[in-house]
Amino acid sequence: MRQAGRYLPEYRAIREKTDFLGLCKTPELAAEVTVQPVEIIGVDAAILFSDILVIPEAMGMPLELIESRGPVFHDPIRAASDIDKLSNDILGRLQYVFDAIKLTKKRLNERVPLIGFAGAPWTLMCYMVEGKGSKNFETVKSFCYQQPKEAHRLLDMLADRVIEYLKAKIAAGCDTVQVFDTWAGVLSPRDLDEFVLPYVAKICDDLKTDGAPVIYFPKGIQDTAKLASLNCSALGIDWTKDIAKAKTEADGKVVQGNLDPCVLFASKEKIRSEVEQIFDAVGTGGGHVFNLGHGILPETPVENARYLVDCVKELSSAKQDQAATS
Amino acid sequence: MRQAGRYLPEYRAIREKTDFLGLCKTPELAAEVTVQPVEIIGVDAAILFSDILVIPEAMGMPLELIESRGPVFHDPIRAASDIDKLSNDILGRLQYVFDAIKLTKKRLNERVPLIGFAGAPWTLMCYMVEGKGSKNFETVKSFCYQQPKEAHRLLDMLADRVIEYLKAKIAAGCDTVQVFDTWAGVLSPRDLDEFVLPYVAKICDDLKTDGAPVIYFPKGIQDTAKLASLNCSALGIDWTKDIAKAKTEADGKVVQGNLDPCVLFASKEKIRSEVEQIFDAVGTGGGHVFNLGHGILPETPVENARYLVDCVKELSSAKQDQAATS
Repeated sequence: MRQAGRYLPEYRAIREKTDFLGLCKTPELAAEVTVQPVEIIGVDAAILFSDILVIPEAMGMPLELIESRGPVFHDPIRAASDIDKLSNDILGRLQYVFDAIKLTKKRLNERVPLIGFAGAPWTLMCYMVEGKGSKNFETVKSFCYQQPKEAHRLLDMLADRVIEYLKAKIAAGCDTVQVFDTWAGVLSPRDLDEFVLPYVAKICDDLKTDGAPVIYFPKGIQDTAKLASLNCSALGIDWTKDIAKAKTEADGKVVQGNLDPCVLFASKEKIRSEVEQIFDAVGTGGGHVFNLGHGILPETPVENARYLVDCVKELSSAKQDQAATS
Repeated sequence: MRQAGRYLPEYRAIREKTDFLGLCKTPELAAEVTVQPVEIIGVDAAILFSDILVIPEAMGMPLELIESRGPVFHDPIRAASDIDKLSNDILGRLQYVFDAIKLTKKRLNERVPLIGFAGAPWTLMCYMVEGKGSKNFETVKSFCYQQPKEAHRLLDMLADRVIEYLKAKIAAGCDTVQVFDTWAGVLSPRDLDEFVLPYVAKICDDLKTDGAPVIYFPKGIQDTAKLASLNCSALGIDWTKDIAKAKTEADGKVVQGNLDPCVLFASKEKIRSEVEQIFDAVGTGGGHVFNLGHGILPETPVENARYLVDCVKELSSAKQDQAATS
């Protein structure tokens, strides 16, 4: 999950030099904020600083990104003619991402692996059609219900763009890639089967050959068993789920998560107790990557983020000892 | 789920006369908009027009309700001293609700039953502590983590207020009561067990003796099996769930739901197909109340709402014939 951000004074210092999208587009600065959490809180992987909406922006949709307000597309997709105008030629326009990856890899100097990410087709389409964040998603759902052919055409285009984008990220140096499906949880099981999973399956199948592990994170979905057949290595598990149950349902895939990011506002005792409970739930059999259940929040106290990392390292190594002796 | 609202021109005509809270507080107008959906779209139960936040308002928290912006408490709860200031003497201040029930019952004249509702303690506390809607609920969760004794004191007070309020609603004429837990789904399973379910259990246990069926609707929660032991008659099931699975997990309780309110923006064919799929999923064994998975949306076309009701009545009576002959 996202690690860089406003909770770090060092991030805020860099952010003063440019706006959010400018930061994504300036490889030196993007690399700098990507490495910050590794050096400041001690996480054991870096996540390339970026935004999922750089793909639709590269397809020709002007994007306004204001951290406190959320993203806005002033000219959202509403009809076939809007889709016709989108460009499929995105990689040249996203060169800044690949440059940032190369710079970050140099700075990391093999200390920790680098993770790159993209938005899943459904989540990208939510923003492209709604034009901004939404409470009920009635505009994008109406688009799916009233113009299903166009919705599927757009989702398929987006799946192809995500594939080539993630392949290029891997080629530039990313060791792992994540596919974020922030709005997967707003659909009925039938709509999930129709508008979400086939496109994620296409992405996972195509990336399978590239060797880098793929993590799929569908926030808020009810039924992890539905994801067992996807060709990905790991599943992100949000904090509302019982991770032991999710691990069983994931049927052999690694599970990643599932601490509520709000727990970082609690006392050290509560943080430690929550980490212990997650470790207890997943057992000693491996197949678990400790993580937050979603991105770190802007007001998070830095010392609590650092304490969490220390705590996870300590309990994780105790657990490995336990597994080795049992 | 909520039936009255901005999608009805007849509601908008009444709303022009007063603001949202004024409408709740004027028994004649509240009764009028409560009866509208029965007469205009033909639903087979009426839901008393009100808002869950009338309880905290009656406890002494000034409330601003703007339909397009959501509710605001300008002086939210943050500490023990804020809780100390709350009044427990609410029924006199809520007389307008009981008057509206009596008027509505007269107008309904036994045509359909009347449902009354309240917010669950956790959801009420979310608004009272956050002071407004929230994306991440970090303020109320921090309150729970940093001041757990105070959080439990407030939740227990709220459970007592909900109990006496719903008892008074039943005494005034409500045939059924619903407990809405709109934000139950934002918590981890551990926090759900600590901050949500004990207070809902207290409410259900206490109301059990009053004879009116109790419906509990915890939006977005992952595990319906956790609710099987509650002393309520029915569970509301949102649209993200597989209702067949939820019905099994509910272990004998009636399930209510689970159509995505956005389906009312689709074609008649799609609406009909979704209704058929829900009926097929729950089977012919009874124990299902057809409903939306959440409140009806402001932009819903009235003719689609009416078509849904007709469609449900037709398919439901076909199903009863089928059950009778099989």
